Amino acid sequence: MKKRIITISREFGSGGRSIGKALADRLNLTYYDKELVKKVALETGFDPQFVEEQGELAPGKSRFSYIFGPQGIPGVMNGLSATDFLWTIQRQVILQLAEKEPCVIVGRCSDYILKDRPDALHVFIHADMSYRADRIVRLYGESEKSPEKRLNEKDTKRKINYNYYTQQDWGMSQNYHLSLNSGVIGPEKCVQIISDLFLQE
Amino acid sequence: MKKRIITISREFGSGGRSIGKALADRLNLTYYDKELVKKVALETGFDPQFVEEQGELAPGKSRFSYIFGPQGIPGVMNGLSATDFLWTIQRQVILQLAEKEPCVIVGRCSDYILKDRPDALHVFIHADMSYRADRIVRLYGESEKSPEKRLNEKDTKRKINYNYYTQQDWGMSQNYHLSLNSGVIGPEKCVQIISDLFLQE
Repeated sequence: MKKRIITISREFGSGGRSIGKALADRLNLTYYDKELVKKVALETGFDPQFVEEQGELAPGKSRFSYIFGPQGIPGVMNGLSATDFLWTIQRQVILQLAEKEPCVIVGRCSDYILKDRPDALHVFIHADMSYRADRIVRLYGESEKSPEKRLNEKDTKRKINYNYYTQQDWGMSQNYHLSLNSGVIGPEKCVQIISDLFLQE
Repeated sequence: MKKRIITISREFGSGGRSIGKALADRLNLTYYDKELVKKVALETGFDPQFVEEQGELAPGKSRFSYIFGPQGIPGVMNGLSATDFLWTIQRQVILQLAEKEPCVIVGRCSDYILKDRPDALHVFIHADMSYRADRIVRLYGESEKSPEKRLNEKDTKRKINYNYYTQQDWGMSQNYHLSLNSGVIGPEKCVQIISDLFLQE
């Protein structure tokens, strides 16, 4: 079946986001990353920075207090934790976007949320530690933590969040239609492979 | 770096073996699957059927008795269990084959064993349960067990064997350069993608 949606899941620093953007440009698809964050912020009333950070990095067993108490305010959050509430709205926004228009969606468990859509192509981008370490230092600069520590911390958070909300293992090949090592294959070639598959009847 | 070796790891019934064979034909590479089993059988003195079945399906914590007792016969098996001895020889044979000639090697933790060779391209082939179930019934016929049960049993054995000997998770994207869903992408397209990458400078 001809595809109309691409989801990109990725290890931090692997260039998955750039690959997603290049695909959207090449295939004339709407690109959802920051724009998705804005939409979710609008729907939830949360600060965009909170959505950005917690939307795919929130701990599985939430450390966040139940903002409205364990019973919640009926009809508002119904006793959900802030991060569970965020997950619910984020899921609805992703389902609506996929329905609305051909697009590329980066992260936020979008592979799992759209797994029943036969018109979605699910991609995982990863790379070796050294490639990713060089890349984040080049893009985001140095920090007091080693790049390896920054990579491990962020990937661990993504993994815990994904595993908790999907009951699947983040990064497991079987969750995606294709997984590519962008360091070995090269980002341009990744774009070409994904693009070819997307256009395949 | 130009590649000269392809390793194919695969879920049972995903067609990974056929894809490996087609790649070997197309790229003029030696194909090692049954031939590898014969070589290992010759080196170990084990029956080829034992090698075929235990070489990638043996339980991690081996149920096999220590054939030569816990201390072994010095210089022969040195107290290794039969399956650990098989693993050691199989590993040596795979390292020698990779050194000897450009080739495709199917299964037997070859991705892990050859992970330090920059001239090796590591591929994982998987597919949805329904695709694989149809395929094994078509190829191997019905049995008293459901195809789903047969698939789960064999994959579980491969997974336990792989995880035990490599300390990695079988099927995790990060172990391979690319992972492809042969049911969605189609086996011919898989061959084309892998072949293109193999030939890339």
